[in-house]
Amino acid sequence: MKKVIINGIVVTASDTYQADVCIENGVITQIGSKLSTEGAEVIDAKGNYLFPGGIDPHTHLDMPFGGTVTKDDFETGTIAAAFGGTTTVIDFCLTSKGKSLQSAIDTWHAKSKDKAVIDYGFHLQIVEGSDEVLSELPKVIENEGITSFKVFMAYKNVFQADDETLFKTLLAGKELGALVMVHAENGDVIDYLVKKALAEGNTDPIYHALTRPPEAEGEATGRAATLTALAGSQLYVVHVSCAEAARKIAEARSNGVDIWGETCPQYLVLDQSYLEKPDFEGAKYVWSPPLREKWNQEVLWNALKSGTLQTIGSDQCSFDFDGQKTLGKEDFSLIPNGGPIIEDRVSILFSEGVKKGKITLNQFVDLTSTRAAKLFGLYPKKGTIAVGADADIVIFDPNVERVISAELHHMAVDYNAFEGKQVVGEPVTVLSRGEFVILDKQFVGKAGAGQYLKRAKYGEEKVTEEVGSVVS
Amino acid sequence: MKKVIINGIVVTASDTYQADVCIENGVITQIGSKLSTEGAEVIDAKGNYLFPGGIDPHTHLDMPFGGTVTKDDFETGTIAAAFGGTTTVIDFCLTSKGKSLQSAIDTWHAKSKDKAVIDYGFHLQIVEGSDEVLSELPKVIENEGITSFKVFMAYKNVFQADDETLFKTLLAGKELGALVMVHAENGDVIDYLVKKALAEGNTDPIYHALTRPPEAEGEATGRAATLTALAGSQLYVVHVSCAEAARKIAEARSNGVDIWGETCPQYLVLDQSYLEKPDFEGAKYVWSPPLREKWNQEVLWNALKSGTLQTIGSDQCSFDFDGQKTLGKEDFSLIPNGGPIIEDRVSILFSEGVKKGKITLNQFVDLTSTRAAKLFGLYPKKGTIAVGADADIVIFDPNVERVISAELHHMAVDYNAFEGKQVVGEPVTVLSRGEFVILDKQFVGKAGAGQYLKRAKYGEEKVTEEVGSVVS
Amino acid sequence: MKKVIINGIVVTASDTYQADVCIENGVITQIGSKLSTEGAEVIDAKGNYLFPGGIDPHTHLDMPFGGTVTKDDFETGTIAAAFGGTTTVIDFCLTSKGKSLQSAIDTWHAKSKDKAVIDYGFHLQIVEGSDEVLSELPKVIENEGITSFKVFMAYKNVFQADDETLFKTLLAGKELGALVMVHAENGDVIDYLVKKALAEGNTDPIYHALTRPPEAEGEATGRAATLTALAGSQLYVVHVSCAEAARKIAEARSNGVDIWGETCPQYLVLDQSYLEKPDFEGAKYVWSPPLREKWNQEVLWNALKSGTLQTIGSDQCSFDFDGQKTLGKEDFSLIPNGGPIIEDRVSILFSEGVKKGKITLNQFVDLTSTRAAKLFGLYPKKGTIAVGADADIVIFDPNVERVISAELHHMAVDYNAFEGKQVVGEPVTVLSRGEFVILDKQFVGKAGAGQYLKRAKYGEEKVTEEVGSVVS
Amino acid sequence: MKKVIINGIVVTASDTYQADVCIENGVITQIGSKLSTEGAEVIDAKGNYLFPGGIDPHTHLDMPFGGTVTKDDFETGTIAAAFGGTTTVIDFCLTSKGKSLQSAIDTWHAKSKDKAVIDYGFHLQIVEGSDEVLSELPKVIENEGITSFKVFMAYKNVFQADDETLFKTLLAGKELGALVMVHAENGDVIDYLVKKALAEGNTDPIYHALTRPPEAEGEATGRAATLTALAGSQLYVVHVSCAEAARKIAEARSNGVDIWGETCPQYLVLDQSYLEKPDFEGAKYVWSPPLREKWNQEVLWNALKSGTLQTIGSDQCSFDFDGQKTLGKEDFSLIPNGGPIIEDRVSILFSEGVKKGKITLNQFVDLTSTRAAKLFGLYPKKGTIAVGADADIVIFDPNVERVISAELHHMAVDYNAFEGKQVVGEPVTVLSRGEFVILDKQFVGKAGAGQYLKRAKYGEEKVTEEVGSVVS
Ligand SMILES: [Zn+2]
Ligand SMILES: [Zn+2]
Ligand SMILES: [Zn+2]
Ligand SMILES: [Zn+2]
Ligand SMILES: [Zn+2]
Ligand SMILES: [Zn+2]
Ligand SMILES: [Zn+2]
Ligand SMILES: [Zn+2]
Repeated sequence: MKKVIINGIVVTASDTYQADVCIENGVITQIGSKLSTEGAEVIDAKGNYLFPGGIDPHTHLDMPFGGTVTKDDFETGTIAAAFGGTTTVIDFCLTSKGKSLQSAIDTWHAKSKDKAVIDYGFHLQIVEGSDEVLSELPKVIENEGITSFKVFMAYKNVFQADDETLFKTLLAGKELGALVMVHAENGDVIDYLVKKALAEGNTDPIYHALTRPPEAEGEATGRAATLTALAGSQLYVVHVSCAEAARKIAEARSNGVDIWGETCPQYLVLDQSYLEKPDFEGAKYVWSPPLREKWNQEVLWNALKSGTLQTIGSDQCSFDFDGQKTLGKEDFSLIPNGGPIIEDRVSILFSEGVKKGKITLNQFVDLTSTRAAKLFGLYPKKGTIAVGADADIVIFDPNVERVISAELHHMAVDYNAFEGKQVVGEPVTVLSRGEFVILDKQFVGKAGAGQYLKRAKYGEEKVTEEVGSVVS
Repeated sequence: MKKVIINGIVVTASDTYQADVCIENGVITQIGSKLSTEGAEVIDAKGNYLFPGGIDPHTHLDMPFGGTVTKDDFETGTIAAAFGGTTTVIDFCLTSKGKSLQSAIDTWHAKSKDKAVIDYGFHLQIVEGSDEVLSELPKVIENEGITSFKVFMAYKNVFQADDETLFKTLLAGKELGALVMVHAENGDVIDYLVKKALAEGNTDPIYHALTRPPEAEGEATGRAATLTALAGSQLYVVHVSCAEAARKIAEARSNGVDIWGETCPQYLVLDQSYLEKPDFEGAKYVWSPPLREKWNQEVLWNALKSGTLQTIGSDQCSFDFDGQKTLGKEDFSLIPNGGPIIEDRVSILFSEGVKKGKITLNQFVDLTSTRAAKLFGLYPKKGTIAVGADADIVIFDPNVERVISAELHHMAVDYNAFEGKQVVGEPVTVLSRGEFVILDKQFVGKAGAGQYLKRAKYGEEKVTEEVGSVVS
Repeated sequence: MKKVIINGIVVTASDTYQADVCIENGVITQIGSKLSTEGAEVIDAKGNYLFPGGIDPHTHLDMPFGGTVTKDDFETGTIAAAFGGTTTVIDFCLTSKGKSLQSAIDTWHAKSKDKAVIDYGFHLQIVEGSDEVLSELPKVIENEGITSFKVFMAYKNVFQADDETLFKTLLAGKELGALVMVHAENGDVIDYLVKKALAEGNTDPIYHALTRPPEAEGEATGRAATLTALAGSQLYVVHVSCAEAARKIAEARSNGVDIWGETCPQYLVLDQSYLEKPDFEGAKYVWSPPLREKWNQEVLWNALKSGTLQTIGSDQCSFDFDGQKTLGKEDFSLIPNGGPIIEDRVSILFSEGVKKGKITLNQFVDLTSTRAAKLFGLYPKKGTIAVGADADIVIFDPNVERVISAELHHMAVDYNAFEGKQVVGEPVTVLSRGEFVILDKQFVGKAGAGQYLKRAKYGEEKVTEEVGSVVS
Repeated sequence: MKKVIINGIVVTASDTYQADVCIENGVITQIGSKLSTEGAEVIDAKGNYLFPGGIDPHTHLDMPFGGTVTKDDFETGTIAAAFGGTTTVIDFCLTSKGKSLQSAIDTWHAKSKDKAVIDYGFHLQIVEGSDEVLSELPKVIENEGITSFKVFMAYKNVFQADDETLFKTLLAGKELGALVMVHAENGDVIDYLVKKALAEGNTDPIYHALTRPPEAEGEATGRAATLTALAGSQLYVVHVSCAEAARKIAEARSNGVDIWGETCPQYLVLDQSYLEKPDFEGAKYVWSPPLREKWNQEVLWNALKSGTLQTIGSDQCSFDFDGQKTLGKEDFSLIPNGGPIIEDRVSILFSEGVKKGKITLNQFVDLTSTRAAKLFGLYPKKGTIAVGADADIVIFDPNVERVISAELHHMAVDYNAFEGKQVVGEPVTVLSRGEFVILDKQFVGKAGAGQYLKRAKYGEEKVTEEVGSVVS
C-alpha cells in the first residue's frame, strides 16, 4: 500500500527542505510539495526530520570472543538498531585459518537469516593471504556480494595478520573492486606491553588503556596507509580513536591516497578516565583501541567536520557486565572487548554533534548513513532519501529530551555505556523498505524481515534498475 | 506555466538518480518517478544530467583595472556564464579609501541592474578597517544582503590592506555573520620583486610568475588562517593556486579553523610554462596568483577530492589580448591581470575532473554550485535540485565532445585561455527560476532578467518560506 | 704574565678532556698534559670545568623603553654577566626613523665605552628599509664591524617594521654578509588585542600574556622564515618562546633555509601562570613574547637537544619592580617589558639542562657560547678553548649548590625572576683575555676594561692572524 | 718515540685553529703554538688540515651474502679505509637463529684478528628476540664491549626480524645501555614486489630500485621511531636514502625521541638512473635501500646541514662486477647488494659537502668521525684531536685535485662506484695510535696492527683514564 509522509523536513547528505514523501512498493517514488495522498496511508511528520535510515557499518552480532559470545544477536541487535534509527547493519564475518571463506559466510547467514528485523550485509575477515584464500575472493564477491574485507593488525596470535597478508588483500581489493578495512594497532607492541603489565601485577581495567598506547594506533594507521598507496588500492580504517591516527589519515588523503576513516560515538564522548571507575566498573569501558585522553575528542570532532573522517560505526560488541566483563576481574586482558552502542550511535551524533554546532545536519546524515552506503556498495538503494531509493526512513524528533539508560534501552545487556547521559532528539517512527519497524516508538517489525544485502563493488554507484541506467 | 523535465538524471551534491522534475512559478515543486505532465510544458532530458545551476562565486565584470576595464560586463559576462551552465554569479564590488561603502555598492548596482541575464550578488571589498567602514557594515548586511567581505593582502598601494584591517574585518565577520574572503599573497615581497625584475630589464610575461613565488601565497594563506583562528572567525581563500597554500588550509582545517578554499580551472589545467609562449602570447595567461609549475595540478586535484578545497571560481576578469593585454608589452607589470573563464568553468571541471575520475559527479556539483550557495547565503534557494528551490537547472549532455575556442565562445574577448582544448560534456538547456535562458544551446534570455540577490548571513541555511520553517 | 690553569677539565662544543691550559698575552697558547708551569701564575682548577666564556647574544643595557630606562647599564650589567660566567655581550643598538645609523651607534659607544668590564659588540636595529638606511649599511659593517641587523615585527607604532623593510634588510644581509635578527610576533594583531583588553577593563599583568597569543609568534616566525627563503638570506629568530614558533623554524631548516633560533632561560623554566601572581607581582614576569603554558617547556628543551634551536640569550632588560614595573599597575600595557637574566643565563642552562640530562655538556657550551660566536662573527677569538683563542675562560664548579636570590645577585634591580630557585653549579673564576674579572667569586675587574668588538661578516670564520691563514 | 706535527690546521667537530700537535705513546699529549720539538720526530703539515681519523660505523668486511662473500676482507678493507682517511671501522657481526651470539662473535674475531691494519669493533645482529638471545646480551656487553645491536626490518626469510624482536631489542638496549640500529625497509612489501616483478619478466637491475620504493623505507623508519619512543630507548637508522625516511626522523627528534640517522656517500651523489646503465652495468649500483630519484640528494644534504642526520657510513659491502654482481644477470634479485665505498667515504663528503658549501668543515668532522665515536662508545679515545685522545690523525691536503678510479683505488674489487668522479682533497699521511699507516700516500702499516675495540655503553662518555676522572 502507498504511504505518504507529510509535513516532514527531508534531510540528505547535502540538502534540507520541507516536502512530502510518497512511498510505493517499498521505494520512494515522489518527493514534492503537497503531494496527493489519495489512497495512501498518511503519516504526519510535522516538526520532525526525515533522515535516510542509518547504516551501521561496524557491528559484531552473535560473535564469539575470548570464550564467550556477544550478548546481542541479530534479533536483539537489529531491534535495538532500529529503535536508534538504524535500518542497515554490516556485520563482520569472522574466518579461521585453514577453513574456506564460504564456510564462514554460511555460518554468518545461519546466525542472521531468520533473526534480523532490518537489512544487513557482511564484511569478510581475511586472516591470511594464502593462495587458497585469495582465489576464493572472486567467488565471494560474485556469489555473496561481499565487497569489503577486514584485516586485523592487532590481537597477536588470534586475529592478527602480517603485512604480507594486508598488502595482498589490498592488491586483491584493487583488482576485484573491494574496500579493505583495517583494525589498526601494532599488535606486537601491545602483546608485549600486556604481558609486561600482567607480570608486574597490574591487572586493573585501566591497564587495558595503558598497554595500548595511541602511538601504536598511529603507527599501524600510517603503515596501512603506506601499503595502500603502494598497492594503489583503497582503505577504510575502522574505529579511529586518537589524534595520531587521524593525522596519518589526513596526510595520506592530502597525498591523494584513497583512504577513509571511521570513528565511534564512544571515542567522541567518553575518555580514558572511565577505565579507572571503581569496583571494576572500568571494565564496561574496555574497547580496542581504548578510550583516549579527553583532548582527543576535539581532534576527532574536527576530523569529522573537516572531512578527515567520514563515517560513524558503533563497533557494537556487547557483553554483560555481570558474568562476561567480570571474566577479567583478576586480569584485564580477559575482559571481553567492546560495548553496546548500536542503539545510541545516531542519537549521540545528533545530540553532541549537530545540536552543539560541531557538525552540520547534512554532515550528520552523511556520517551516519550516506557515506557508508556509498563506500560499501549499498547506494543508491540505501543511504539517502531520493526517488528510486528504498524507503528506509527515520522520522526523527529533534527536540525531545531524554536520558540514556540501560533500563530503557533495547539491547540485551545489563548496562549502557552512556548511562545517565542527557541527549536531545529521538527517532519516532522508522521504516524499512516502506514497512514500519518502529511506529511511535514501539517495535512493530518482525524477526526475519530483514534481507541480506549483496553489495556492489567499490566505486560502483548505480542508479536503481527501475528508474534508469547506470550513471557511475 | 508549469514545466516538467522528464527522463533526466538528477544530480545533487550527494545524490544521483533518475526522476522527473516539476517546476511551478519558478520553483521546483515535485521530483518523482513518472510525474503527471498534464498541462505542463514537457522537456525531455533523456540521456542528460540535471545539475543545479552553477554558482560562480568569483567574477569581476565591468571592473576597472590599471587604467582599463574588463571587457565583459554584466550582460556579455552573464550570457557567457549561462551558456556555460552558470545561473548565479557573485561579483566583487570594489571600494575606495575615504568613500562610503554604499556609494560603491550603488555603482555596482548601476553596472548590473539592467544587464544581467541571470541572478547575481555582490561581495564587498574592505580596503581599510577604519571606524567609518566598520560602522557601515551592519547596514550593508541589513539593507543589501551583502554577507561576504573581501580583503586583499597583495597589490601594494592599490588594493592591499594591512593585517590590522584583515583582523578587524575578520572580527566584524564573526560578529555580524559574514564570510571574509582573502586574496592571499604577500604584496610587500611581490612589490619588491617586481621592481627588481623591471630594474634588471626583465620585462617579459614570464616574470609575472617569477615575481609572485608560491611561497608568497603560502605565507599569506597561513597568516590569514592564523588571524582567522585568533579572531574565532571564518575565512574563504580565493583562487588557491599552489601546494604551499593548500597545505596551510589543510593544516588549519585539521585544527578546527573555519576556513574554506577556492581554486579555479586555470590552475587545474594550465601551468607556468604558458607564460613563456612566444610573441607576447604569454600575456594571455597572466593571473594573480600566477599559473604554477605543473606538479601543483595534482596537489590541487587531491585537495578537491579530499575536501581541502571546496569551491571552483572562475576569477573571470577578461581583457582583450589586442589593446588590453598588450598594454604590458614593454613591462609585464602593466599587463592587466586575469582572463575569460566564466563560460568554461563548469565544463572544464566536468571534463577534466569527473570524466577523468579525479572527483565524483556529486563532488562536481558541490564544487561548482552547492557549496558556494551554502557559504554565501544563497542556499537552499540556489545550489541544489530539491523541492522548494529555485528552478535554476542545467540540462547537461555528458557525452558530447567539443573543442573550446574563442571563435565559438560568448565572452566579449578576442581569445580563450583554453583555446583548442577538447572537452567532453556541454550544457544543452539552462533555466533560471524556471525560465529558459539557454534553450538547445541558443540564448533565449534577456538582459535585466537577472535579479539581485540579498544573501543570508554566514551559517544561516534556511528552508524557503513557502515550504516550511527555519531548520538551520 | 703567563698563566697556567692546571687540573681542570676542558669543555668545548664538541670535546671534554682533562688538560692544563697555558695563557700568554691574553691568548691560549698551549693545551696539554702536565704543561710546564715555569715562570707562570698557576691556577688550580681541580674538580672544576673550564668553559669558554659565555657569550650573551641578546642584551638591552642602558636602554630607554616606554619613558623609563633599563636599570642595568654597561657597568652593572657586565659585572653581573661576568659573575654568571659570561665574558662577551652583544647589545641591541636602537635607531630612530629619520636619523642616521651612525648617530645611534655613537650613542651606544658612549653608553658602553668606559663602563663595560668584559668585551662587547652591537647589533643594529633597522626600523625602515629606506634608501638612506640601506646605503649606510656597508659603512656600518666596514667601519664598525656590526654584522647583524635587528628587525621588529611587533611593537606597532614604536619599533615595528613592515614586511618590505624586513625583506629589504634580508636582501641587504645576504649581499653584505650580515645576519638578520627578528623579534617575531604579529604586532597588528597584538595591538588590537591589547586595546580591546584594556577597553574591556582587563588591566592585570596576565592580560599581557593573553593579548600576545602563541599563534601570533608562530605566524610571524613562519613569515620571516618564508621571506628569508625568498631572499636566499639568513635569519636569527630571537627569544623563541613556544611550540608554534619552534615548529616553523624546524620546517624551514628541513627545507634548507639558513635559519637559527634562540630561546631564553625564562621560557625554559617559568610559565604563564607566573603572571597571575597576586599583588601585581605578575609584572615581574612580563616579557615579550610572554611566558607560555608550561607544556611548551618540553618542546623548547627538545628543540635545543635536537638542534632546532641553537643559542641561549638572556634578553636582559631589567627594571625595578618598585617604580618601574609598577608604572603598569593600572594598565598592563604600561609595564616595562623584560627582566634581569644576564647573571643566571649560564647557570640555569647548566643546572636545568645538563644536570637534568636534557642536553649534553658539549651542547651546553655550544648553546651558551660557541654557536653565538660563530653566528655573530666572533669566532675563533671568542667561543672556544683552543690554541689561538682569547683566554676568555670560566672555571666552573659543577657541584656546588646554591639558591638564586636578589639579595645575592649583582644586577642593579630589586628582584630576581628566579628568586628561591635551587641550582647546581657556579662560576668560581672568570678570565677575560687572560685577566681575572672574577677571582674566587669576587669581582676583581674594572670598568672600561672591556673592549668593543668589531665582528666578521656572517659565515666568515677566520683562524686568528697570529697563528695562521684563513680557513673558512 | 715522540712525534710533533707542526704547521697543520687542527679541525674538530667544533673548532678550527692552527697549532702543533705532540704525540707520545700513541696519545695526544699537547696541542700548542710552537711546541718544543726536541727529541721528537717532526712532521710538517703545512697547508694541510689535521682531522681526527675517520670512523666508519657501517662496514661489511668478509661477509657472506647470497652464496658469495664480500671481496674485501679485514685486510684489504682496512688498508683501503686507511688510504681514505679512516682509522676505525665498526663491522656488522651476523648471527643465526638458534646459534649463540658468542659463536658468531668468535667467527668475527677470527676474520679480523690478524688482518686489520686499523682499529675495529663489532655491531651485533639480533635476529630474534628469544629468551636465549636476550639473556646472552649482558655478557656480550660485559665481555666483548659490544654496545650496539642491529635489527633488519627487511630481507624477508633471511635477516628480517618482526616488530616483537625489534621492540624487545629496543627495551634491552634501554636497560643495558646499547644503541639499537635498524635497516629500515618494509620487507613484506618488498618481498611481494620483487616476486611480482620477476613473475612479470622484469629482471633488469632497475627493478631492484622499483621494487623497493621510498615509501617502504619511510614506513619502516617511522615504525621503528614509534617503537623507540614507546620503549623509551635509543635508535640509529642506518643508510637513510630518501626524503620520506629523513622526514620521519626529523619528526621523531622534534618530539624528543632519541633517534639518530646515518646516510652514505652513494645516496648523496648517485641516483636511481645509474641502475639503468646498459650492459648490466646498473648492477654496480645495487644497494638496499636503492639509489633514489635525484631530488632526494638535496633533501639529504639539508638533513645533514640541519642536524636531522648525524653520521656518514660507507655500508662497505664490495663485490666484483665480474663473477659476483653478474650472478644476477638473469634476475636482479640475485645481484649481491652493496658496493665499495670505504675508501672514498671521507673524500666524497669533503669534496661534495665542504668544498661546495653544503656543510661546514666542523660538521664534516662530526659526520665522518666524532659523532660515531660518541654514539658507539669510542669517545674520547677516538673521534677527536684533543689531549688524551688516541693519536688517530689524518693529515689532509684540502686542495689537491684527483679523479676516483678503480685503477687507483686499494679496494679488492674490479670497479669503483664513483669511477671518473673528480674530487678535491686527499689524505696525505694517516696515523693510528701515533703510528704511520699511510705516509705520503704510501701504505706503511701492517696486518694485525689494528686492535679490537671494546666499547663503552651508550651515553657514557668517559675522559680517558690517563688524564682524569669520569665527566659524564
Ligand atoms: Zn577492531
Ligand atoms: Zn570491531
Ligand atoms: Zn585576486
Ligand atoms: Zn579575483
Ligand atoms: Zn624582543
Ligand atoms: Zn630583546
Ligand atoms: Zn642494510
Ligand atoms: Zn649494511
